[in-house]
Amino acid sequence: MAEAALEAVRRVLQEFPAEARDLNVPCVVPYLDDPPTPLCFYRDWVCPNRPCIIRNALQHWPALHKWSPSYLRAMVGSTEVSVAVTPDGYADAVRGDRFVMPAECRLPISHVLDVLEGQAQHPGVLYVQKQCSNLPTELPQLLSDIESHVPWASESLVHKDHYENLYCVVSGEKHFLLHPPSDRPFIPYNLYTPASYQLTEEGTFRVVDEEAMEKVPWIPLDPLAPDLARYPSYSQARALHCTVRAGELLYLPSLWFHHVQQSHGCIAVNFWYDMEYDLKYSYFQLMESLTRATGLD
Amino acid sequence: MAEAALEAVRRVLQEFPAEARDLNVPCVVPYLDDPPTPLCFYRDWVCPNRPCIIRNALQHWPALHKWSPSYLRAMVGSTEVSVAVTPDGYADAVRGDRFVMPAECRLPISHVLDVLEGQAQHPGVLYVQKQCSNLPTELPQLLSDIESHVPWASESLVHKDHYENLYCVVSGEKHFLLHPPSDRPFIPYNLYTPASYQLTEEGTFRVVDEEAMEKVPWIPLDPLAPDLARYPSYSQARALHCTVRAGELLYLPSLWFHHVQQSHGCIAVNFWYDMEYDLKYSYFQLMESLTRATGLD
Repeated sequence: MAEAALEAVRRVLQEFPAEARDLNVPCVVPYLDDPPTPLCFYRDWVCPNRPCIIRNALQHWPALHKWSPSYLRAMVGSTEVSVAVTPDGYADAVRGDRFVMPAECRLPISHVLDVLEGQAQHPGVLYVQKQCSNLPTELPQLLSDIESHVPWASESLVHKDHYENLYCVVSGEKHFLLHPPSDRPFIPYNLYTPASYQLTEEGTFRVVDEEAMEKVPWIPLDPLAPDLARYPSYSQARALHCTVRAGELLYLPSLWFHHVQQSHGCIAVNFWYDMEYDLKYSYFQLMESLTRATGLD
Repeated sequence: MAEAALEAVRRVLQEFPAEARDLNVPCVVPYLDDPPTPLCFYRDWVCPNRPCIIRNALQHWPALHKWSPSYLRAMVGSTEVSVAVTPDGYADAVRGDRFVMPAECRLPISHVLDVLEGQAQHPGVLYVQKQCSNLPTELPQLLSDIESHVPWASESLVHKDHYENLYCVVSGEKHFLLHPPSDRPFIPYNLYTPASYQLTEEGTFRVVDEEAMEKVPWIPLDPLAPDLARYPSYSQARALHCTVRAGELLYLPSLWFHHVQQSHGCIAVNFWYDMEYDLKYSYFQLMESLTRATGLD
């Protein structure tokens, strides 16, 4: 009796992603040729929690033609910034039974550029990135090359810690693999001991546990090469793939699962807006709890 | 094992309404002193699916001071309209093991007004109402007394069968009892044989089954006097009560459960906008299926 009811619940949860997808998720990420009005952006993309790529939204940014290696060397070459360093380019990823975060070092921008251009050596893969405003704090000289916010988005998102993310690509390209939140029942999670890479003096990487931190729930699956024998239900999830090119802006909605790759030397600026903790958030939490309660993940 | 998992699922579902309420549902229906902009209306009320009462949105409608019984007699007194007639004022309600719809008759407006004013007799309770545009089709003479739409709502809802409803009270008042969609796990449903009242020549009411129609899922509970011995989980639902007075407009969001009472002779105009079949709709369907699968309703 309970067995049958539980089976029915599992079936409902497993059928939900396809139903949600049929109503809400496009097969490809659509392009808008121009920035939307604040109302259209909110009504057509933010509220329904759908991604889109917006063209011609950044063409007035001087950064688009200015941010070359020589310009960056001239303007901020001697500035030291935080650099995330990993042996393989995978920051914040599961390695064996650990959730491993990058090593962080401080390097002058000119040295990072030398490494990117092959004129200097540094162990591992370098990634200059910092969430929460590294541009104003670490590189204020570059601020005038971009607009300080995205006006039509700021107006529509103004009063809204998960984030609505505007991913603005200045040069190169970013490749996104996206899953809607409704795919949650097919996405495996495990708890991992947190750890960080440490760079040794010999230029090798060591994994060191973060003793003070609590275990981290993370996705063990590599979406580019999923182990379907181990995680068979992932075959029912449907990823969206898209490429965001220089001058384009991706609206990456809150709560979407995402995996990002980029071209060599790609530069992007993110604008994060706090999401509205609304009914969508409550429903996502419900789905999360039910996925766990039924042992689907 | 299955028993425990099923119990966990039920607990998750039963805790969901309070969690959703804490984040999304106000304790009372808030008032706005002026109509919002299209963006604010969409962002703050439609997207989060929250009701509000808007003042000073109808003051330019001539109907507000014109629609007295004498004016209506002069303008449309001889016009026959559809009138819903019930013995007790309950249209579309569960009576015993039947879902009973009102009798429909055609009466001139002047006769309806005579009955309302006690100058004529008619069995039962009369209610002049018709969904889907009875004003343009049955009473076009009155159309110029109202605005043909609600501009700030039309702009924000323009491309959106459940409905977003703008309930505009012209005279008298309407009393609403509202439940958010998230209260679904506490709201009982049963399947009922559909039937209609028929008015006999003796002026009594007879219930006649609608043979051709499928069974109708409906809520057996009277929210004004709930039978908590029979439906104990309804005690965990939380209703919002509000009164919408002449000149005020209630935004009644899609998917909200509602029960309406009105003052004698109350006149109201509804504007219905198709809802967006979005993620909120998919999630509501999920909750509906899970409530059924776990036997909560």
